[in-house]
Amino acid sequence: MAQIEGKVLVAQGGGPTAVINQSVVGAVLESRKYAQITHVYGALNGVSGIVNEEFLDLTETTSRNLEMVAETPSSGLLSTRDKPDVAYCQEIFKVCKAHNIRYFFYCGGNDSADTCRIVNEEAQKGNYELRVIHVPKTIDNDLLVTDHCPGFGSAGKFVASAFAGASLDNRAIPGVYVGVVMGRHAGFLTAAAALAKKYPDDGPHLLYVPERPFTKEQFLGDVKKAFEANGRCSIAVSEGISDKDGKAIAEQFTGGERDAHGNVQLSGTGALGDLLSSWVKVDLGIKRVRADTLGYLQRSFLGCVSESDQIEAREVGEKAAQYAIWHGKSGSVAMRRIGDYAIEYFLTPLETVARLSREMPVEFINAEGNGVTEEFIKYARPLVGPLPTMARFHAPKVDKVLNK
Amino acid sequence: MAQIEGKVLVAQGGGPTAVINQSVVGAVLESRKYAQITHVYGALNGVSGIVNEEFLDLTETTSRNLEMVAETPSSGLLSTRDKPDVAYCQEIFKVCKAHNIRYFFYCGGNDSADTCRIVNEEAQKGNYELRVIHVPKTIDNDLLVTDHCPGFGSAGKFVASAFAGASLDNRAIPGVYVGVVMGRHAGFLTAAAALAKKYPDDGPHLLYVPERPFTKEQFLGDVKKAFEANGRCSIAVSEGISDKDGKAIAEQFTGGERDAHGNVQLSGTGALGDLLSSWVKVDLGIKRVRADTLGYLQRSFLGCVSESDQIEAREVGEKAAQYAIWHGKSGSVAMRRIGDYAIEYFLTPLETVARLSREMPVEFINAEGNGVTEEFIKYARPLVGPLPTMARFHAPKVDKVLNK
Repeated sequence: MAQIEGKVLVAQGGGPTAVINQSVVGAVLESRKYAQITHVYGALNGVSGIVNEEFLDLTETTSRNLEMVAETPSSGLLSTRDKPDVAYCQEIFKVCKAHNIRYFFYCGGNDSADTCRIVNEEAQKGNYELRVIHVPKTIDNDLLVTDHCPGFGSAGKFVASAFAGASLDNRAIPGVYVGVVMGRHAGFLTAAAALAKKYPDDGPHLLYVPERPFTKEQFLGDVKKAFEANGRCSIAVSEGISDKDGKAIAEQFTGGERDAHGNVQLSGTGALGDLLSSWVKVDLGIKRVRADTLGYLQRSFLGCVSESDQIEAREVGEKAAQYAIWHGKSGSVAMRRIGDYAIEYFLTPLETVARLSREMPVEFINAEGNGVTEEFIKYARPLVGPLPTMARFHAPKVDKVLNK
Repeated sequence: MAQIEGKVLVAQGGGPTAVINQSVVGAVLESRKYAQITHVYGALNGVSGIVNEEFLDLTETTSRNLEMVAETPSSGLLSTRDKPDVAYCQEIFKVCKAHNIRYFFYCGGNDSADTCRIVNEEAQKGNYELRVIHVPKTIDNDLLVTDHCPGFGSAGKFVASAFAGASLDNRAIPGVYVGVVMGRHAGFLTAAAALAKKYPDDGPHLLYVPERPFTKEQFLGDVKKAFEANGRCSIAVSEGISDKDGKAIAEQFTGGERDAHGNVQLSGTGALGDLLSSWVKVDLGIKRVRADTLGYLQRSFLGCVSESDQIEAREVGEKAAQYAIWHGKSGSVAMRRIGDYAIEYFLTPLETVARLSREMPVEFINAEGNGVTEEFIKYARPLVGPLPTMARFHAPKVDKVLNK
């Protein structure tokens, strides 16, 4: 395969993650090694920056600066919510041609993969040698083909650390605690809260994912039971929980605003948590009920990163450059789990990832639909990695003297 | 001063912090060194556990277990919201006598200091040799006399890390971001968000503390201006913001529920954030507005600790044991700042701390009442310590070719 001389273009799309810059930096540093690469550009604001030719010349960054950005959460090249159609992708393709861009690496979710797919098709139609690689990222972990997505492990570590702490807090001053977790229609991130459990009575005691229909009746019954058993109850709820007809609970009861793409706004509001909290107060008569919505911190909190996630995010970026520049291929970088625990990378056709999304496999959810299985824990533990220390006093009880 | 033989009792009261167990462990390890200490007890559930004689014998814990608990957030001995009156304190005193407890260390805020004050008085009236030390802790940083409170620095680090990340996120996908911060009537913790700023245009761009009356008019005017200037706006708001008559905004507009002590429930609900967010959407017509309420994570998130805070929390516990057992004194442990930056400890009379609370000094708040001064940054920086890496790409812009 002829190695085409030209430029590399890297961009980031969709919601940021804690490690998405690792992927960009992995791609940039790897690309800078090849003699046929004349420049490495970073597009600002994702695809919208490509159309507007808003490029940074990342060939002229120091390695130290790149490494510092790699450690920084959120999208260092900024992002966009634009979902390009064919006409938009033709504009992208035109800009690539004008700048002699021969390698395009787009880091994002299934919409970004679809953009890659269309741009790749346009290049083929135009007989222009362009390699297009989709570099996976999402905290929702909802991409097809790959074992898991870079970004998920770190978000999972945030969620698990949050629930570990909140459950310790709720143990110190007992009540009902509801924590609402991101993830839209996939329950993986909410399920990661289960990794917070160390001692058998640790929370979260209940866990609700969008893959199972949510009913107020079951929820209140579960909470009553768990509260009576533990004297407290800590609950992880996905923002995307829906009824049996697939209608989001957030929408039914709170009037749920819609975003630019017509999706119900699930994040950036405390409405769902407050709703569930009011049900527990009113229907179960429990006085101390607190709801937190974990919010944007899940994907951007400074200093909360899973080590394996960080490494894999770097590697998918490196592999993108290798597949495109060395092997002359287009596709989406994916991970296959081998052993317990190692990962190997492979390239999957863009159309196998584009637009599609996956949910949690049934074997990850318990029979009652209010918790996860050991299989999920086994799947998620190496992705999230070890949590910081959480211990209880191990000491004997003292005999009472007054014994009133 | 005669060194009285007897037991040490340690307890924790009020809301947990990330480092409150450091103080308990500091007191326990130091107390175990003295020959006249026959046992070191930990009361479960604060003062309510004392009255019920619910004690753990911490003389029988391993140092390793103690060190692990010290690193764990939230109150390892559990807590209580009970605010004892004289009759309640007489019960505490009776239990102390029955168990030959001669040293009582109570870790908490100004209510816990008041409990110490009353118990100390009861012991004096009963001619019973009891040393009572209040060990300061609060994330609100609202205790009198001391330069700052253990617990504040770590909560401040969480808040600063949260705003640093959320502002990077809001830079990648621009809009208005509102983050609601704990602290009741003191603005210190909200002000700590200002430590998130590295580059000049970093958020939070606006910051509202309870010490200045909050008006919808100023808020919307400020947001409009900041949004126009930066193309985005990130805002830190204290849960305790109030109007000129001292009425909480959270209460006026959301019907604010009251807790057991008749205080408005400020935490554990997203209502204030959602209210401010709706004002920005409706009155300013800005579409992408997101509100997060940082919630209980601020005081209990696993793995977010300020190094100086951790050390000081340990030391106030150690000093408590030294003041009581070595010097035979009662009082509240306080910190004095010397140089830039070092701390020395001293003992202040219980009545100088009990029940009272302080607000942010005027010189920490800017003239407009929507930000902090350099003086605050100088005050808070050593308490919170360095934040994790946050960097931007430093690279030249590429000239446009198509230039549409």
